[in-house]
Amino acid sequence: MGMNENVSKPLDRLSNELASDMAAVNTLIRERMASRHAPRIPEVTAHLVEAGGKRLRPMLVLAAARLCGYQGDSHILLAAAVEFIHTATLLHDDVVDESEQRRGRPTANLLWDNKSSVLVGDYLFARSFQLMADTDSMEVMRILANASATIAEGEVLQLTAAQDVTTSEDTYIQIVRGKTAALFSAATEVGAVISGTDKAVQQALFDYGDALGIAFQIVDDLLDYGGSTTVIGKNVGDDFRERKLTLPVIKAIAAADAEELAFWQRTIGKGQQDDSDLETALATLQRRGALDAARADAIAWAERAKSALKIAPDHELRMILSDLADYVVSRLS
Amino acid sequence: MGMNENVSKPLDRLSNELASDMAAVNTLIRERMASRHAPRIPEVTAHLVEAGGKRLRPMLVLAAARLCGYQGDSHILLAAAVEFIHTATLLHDDVVDESEQRRGRPTANLLWDNKSSVLVGDYLFARSFQLMADTDSMEVMRILANASATIAEGEVLQLTAAQDVTTSEDTYIQIVRGKTAALFSAATEVGAVISGTDKAVQQALFDYGDALGIAFQIVDDLLDYGGSTTVIGKNVGDDFRERKLTLPVIKAIAAADAEELAFWQRTIGKGQQDDSDLETALATLQRRGALDAARADAIAWAERAKSALKIAPDHELRMILSDLADYVVSRLS
Repeated sequence: MGMNENVSKPLDRLSNELASDMAAVNTLIRERMASRHAPRIPEVTAHLVEAGGKRLRPMLVLAAARLCGYQGDSHILLAAAVEFIHTATLLHDDVVDESEQRRGRPTANLLWDNKSSVLVGDYLFARSFQLMADTDSMEVMRILANASATIAEGEVLQLTAAQDVTTSEDTYIQIVRGKTAALFSAATEVGAVISGTDKAVQQALFDYGDALGIAFQIVDDLLDYGGSTTVIGKNVGDDFRERKLTLPVIKAIAAADAEELAFWQRTIGKGQQDDSDLETALATLQRRGALDAARADAIAWAERAKSALKIAPDHELRMILSDLADYVVSRLS
Repeated sequence: MGMNENVSKPLDRLSNELASDMAAVNTLIRERMASRHAPRIPEVTAHLVEAGGKRLRPMLVLAAARLCGYQGDSHILLAAAVEFIHTATLLHDDVVDESEQRRGRPTANLLWDNKSSVLVGDYLFARSFQLMADTDSMEVMRILANASATIAEGEVLQLTAAQDVTTSEDTYIQIVRGKTAALFSAATEVGAVISGTDKAVQQALFDYGDALGIAFQIVDDLLDYGGSTTVIGKNVGDDFRERKLTLPVIKAIAAADAEELAFWQRTIGKGQQDDSDLETALATLQRRGALDAARADAIAWAERAKSALKIAPDHELRMILSDLADYVVSRLS
């Protein structure tokens, strides 16, 4: 997410509003990521947990709970649980296959080996379920177990859809729900659920997280074809080189003429790429209006997120969450 | 585990006694390992789940529940959950590092890639928590979340202890609790817990599973220095070549003279091995009585398992579980 001061204001406001809760979450995270027997574990997790992430997901739990008037302590446990699930998925994403290692991708995995990434991720995943169990709420357990299954399913789907130029927009949304939106929506939903607010508001907060997550991921995928390296923390064209079927490419393929289709099949389908192909891809995406169309979709999802909030209690945090949806797409301008 | 007809009788008796429950478990496993969106998932899991495993862990859940007079349906859910956790750890064990791939180890991972093994394992892990949530018992949730953390912790500990010739027997037992005994003891404990039996019997069944698991793993580690390939399904000397500090080697190192210590440091510590070293290792283990001592430990753990059962209800299944502990060490003769 961009570090531009102007557009990051909603995140700063969220941090300020939730400062004392977040301090408790951070303490709990440090406590629970320790391991009495295996010092390798905090070494690996510290790399990720302390790396100065924005803690967006735990803040979504806290914001939803506070917005719904929650007064207990379980939101701290759930915020830490959600951050652990997120960190576990990052660790597992770092696991690379031999072919990828040959490309020399610089991941956290280079600091440790594949096996450590897998096992420490498993440890954090188990720890997250221990945290949930401490809330004594079977409903949050169920929501986060479902989200975890959706995440893994989405990642497997992404694996099998990669390089497949016939991937549809529906499949893309399914993948995005798994890799991003499922944890956003579970975060906001469990925050509402523990507060004991009525079902309609729980659903609204689920819908908000879902739409925010989808908008967030579409923007991320768009930035891969247009943002600068400093903004997105990865290089323009990474997805193209990794042959990922993201929304702009799916839209461009749907509108492609024979020559363009051959281009996508060669570069994405078969992975035969040379140095000039990224430039051609960018020009083709522009010409077919695929970037603009994907951008319009992101904005529509952000609008959906904001509109879901309308039935949530009138609260400073509702305003901030609403502005957060605008902020997510503002990264595109 | 050995396929010798004579000694496998307790397992057969367990299968017979639990046949209709196990049929329900197998149906549930097939149902829940499916994925609406990602067909890759059942492809990968079928390889493991249908591979004709003995389903020892789910049978432990069922046996403990039935032994304690349980009459409901939750034991089926928990048996499937435990098998999913087991399968997930097998998949994650298959993830290899580049260095290991160079050695050309034939694992399930060769059929799919590292990433599929990781993600499908994650999916099964999430599915197992969904199954647990269906029991509506927060206590079993807590027990299995704790077991999952112990498993991951033990595996990380094994990773860091590998090649470390100063590894103690205490650390070895800690590792074995993680990699084997934690799921055995959680399986028998949750079976007892859902039956609502008194705490002393719950503890007894936990203790049985713990001791059985430790005996089981010590025997496995012993067979690596003496069983035939057909019995153990792996080659004699695999652990030596992978420089694992198993109980026989730890005992031999504790009793080593200067020359032997230099041998262990070279072969296990530094991994400098030639063709004759396995033979030297075997001779040294024999000379130091390390195999006999480890065998005595395995027998003592099996006795501990049997003695824990004494306060369990008088039942045909108690007899079978007791014989199962004997069977586990009978693989050594």
